[in-house]
Amino acid sequence: MKESEIIDLFKMKTGEDVIVGPGDDCAVLPGVSFDQYTVVTTDMLIEGTHFLKDQITAKQLAKKSLAVNLSDIAAMGAQPTYVFLSLALPKEISDQWITEFALAFKNECLRQNITLVGGDTNRSSNLIVVNPVVHGTVLKKHLKTRSGARKGDLICVTGPVGDSRAGLRLLQVQSLTSPGSDSLIKAHFEPTAQLQEGFFLGREAAVTAMMDVSDGVAADLSKLLKSSNCEGSIQLEKIPVSSELKDFCCLTKQNVFEFAALGGEDYVLLLTVNENNFLKLQSDFRSECGKDLICIGKITDGSSSKVSYFLNGQNYLLKNSSFEHFE
Amino acid sequence: MKESEIIDLFKMKTGEDVIVGPGDDCAVLPGVSFDQYTVVTTDMLIEGTHFLKDQITAKQLAKKSLAVNLSDIAAMGAQPTYVFLSLALPKEISDQWITEFALAFKNECLRQNITLVGGDTNRSSNLIVVNPVVHGTVLKKHLKTRSGARKGDLICVTGPVGDSRAGLRLLQVQSLTSPGSDSLIKAHFEPTAQLQEGFFLGREAAVTAMMDVSDGVAADLSKLLKSSNCEGSIQLEKIPVSSELKDFCCLTKQNVFEFAALGGEDYVLLLTVNENNFLKLQSDFRSECGKDLICIGKITDGSSSKVSYFLNGQNYLLKNSSFEHFE
Repeated sequence: MKESEIIDLFKMKTGEDVIVGPGDDCAVLPGVSFDQYTVVTTDMLIEGTHFLKDQITAKQLAKKSLAVNLSDIAAMGAQPTYVFLSLALPKEISDQWITEFALAFKNECLRQNITLVGGDTNRSSNLIVVNPVVHGTVLKKHLKTRSGARKGDLICVTGPVGDSRAGLRLLQVQSLTSPGSDSLIKAHFEPTAQLQEGFFLGREAAVTAMMDVSDGVAADLSKLLKSSNCEGSIQLEKIPVSSELKDFCCLTKQNVFEFAALGGEDYVLLLTVNENNFLKLQSDFRSECGKDLICIGKITDGSSSKVSYFLNGQNYLLKNSSFEHFE
Repeated sequence: MKESEIIDLFKMKTGEDVIVGPGDDCAVLPGVSFDQYTVVTTDMLIEGTHFLKDQITAKQLAKKSLAVNLSDIAAMGAQPTYVFLSLALPKEISDQWITEFALAFKNECLRQNITLVGGDTNRSSNLIVVNPVVHGTVLKKHLKTRSGARKGDLICVTGPVGDSRAGLRLLQVQSLTSPGSDSLIKAHFEPTAQLQEGFFLGREAAVTAMMDVSDGVAADLSKLLKSSNCEGSIQLEKIPVSSELKDFCCLTKQNVFEFAALGGEDYVLLLTVNENNFLKLQSDFRSECGKDLICIGKITDGSSSKVSYFLNGQNYLLKNSSFEHFE
């Protein structure tokens, strides 16, 4: 059974008290005041599926497990408030590992101004499982979801993609080397949630839909289009890529833009923007966040959630546009 | 490192916006209106640690994973509202198992009037991990915590204890048989959260502190006394035990009350009650919930969180009064 089929199995009717249920980056629930929503997300990291204990440090794992959840909060235009942490730890794990993990997790909470308010600690026979749940808050008028994209909107990303996927490939194939491998591996182990960027973009009415890129631009854009009931076209050569990724793809004889589009674990934001307001937004985003807002495509006519890819003006068939953790 | 030492490692200062942080059955956070709190809990069940896949059915696991979390909600006097579900499923698991699990989980949500609003589904290399997070709501004035017990209060439980522990023993030692083994094993696999009971007791001012019994009366009472900064005495023979447990302990040559006090996974409520209001509360509880409120001891002078046990008027030393999942 595919992950999407399993998710469908669990779908149930939600009442009016659920503003957004399963299928967005966060669930959206009534907030602590009439003009706010509470958003909640959870992402579980499992040894052997999401990381190998020999490759990632306790500190990196602690920070990454929080970052992937914070990225979902950023995607809603929200700010994080509380975190819960469920842990499964094998008996063999050292006290030093646990201590380093705990300190790094708490330090990151302090840095992000969020409070660890609960959780559950358990022994497991062999696997480390880290499952944070993060709460956030957002003014109702600043909430962004995946479902607001409209024909004519520009499709944008907030940073380069593909590095993490290349980093993972380098970890998996030890014989592979590339001049920028340290930077690519770092992108995989030490992602940063774009909280400031998400919060800024949440306040901008020109942003019509937003999500974070965790399964790759291609797969995630399909989800956004499905939620928004529209179609899109992407100009592959506009996708921002790092020089390290260019080197890597040159060496491994792959098209860098295709590799980047398929990506995964990028944790930049993917958003759609009203075309008329794009230049102003791009300029404000640069002043406020010190980053480029990069237009990579456009929402087109139709409602099939299909994405058309172009490379230098020519139609381009992406080799594998669906990403499944679970097969 | 012990579970309690790991929990200490993760402790961080909480601000005024956190009404109750780690260390109670739920975290208590600002609610959706000025007179309410939101309570949140998470309990993770891991294959090999909390259950064996060959022994528990998918349906039982689904219901139990929800019940152990709902029991924490009941302990605060709250009512459950939303649930999030993180799952790790090995690739080998059958579609039928997943389907049965999902249907049972959803049916139980419907029955309890709670909505599944999010979660995360993942593959794992070998272990099933089920991690629900449950939100609840409670009027501020009806919130119960572990910290309100005062000298002279009566210590009560809302039902028999020890059955689940005996059920687990029967599952672990296949050569063991007892006339009531089906009922004891059922208590272990199919616990029920005492939501109605918790909600009723939350509304009663006579109830000064409350928690659920997940680690056994002895271990959990120690926690309640520590939170309340007091001491207690228990009359072991007053602890309610089932006839099946009596048979089991007779057969295995153990003192049934000691076995019951050590228990674990009982999911009844443990509470302290103002002595002057006890008889009225007991009578109201019987009318409202159809159950006995059983007084098993008293809060005594002192602040060491020590529990003194008595059996038929004589001091009794419990063989092992501390319970640790994690050693």
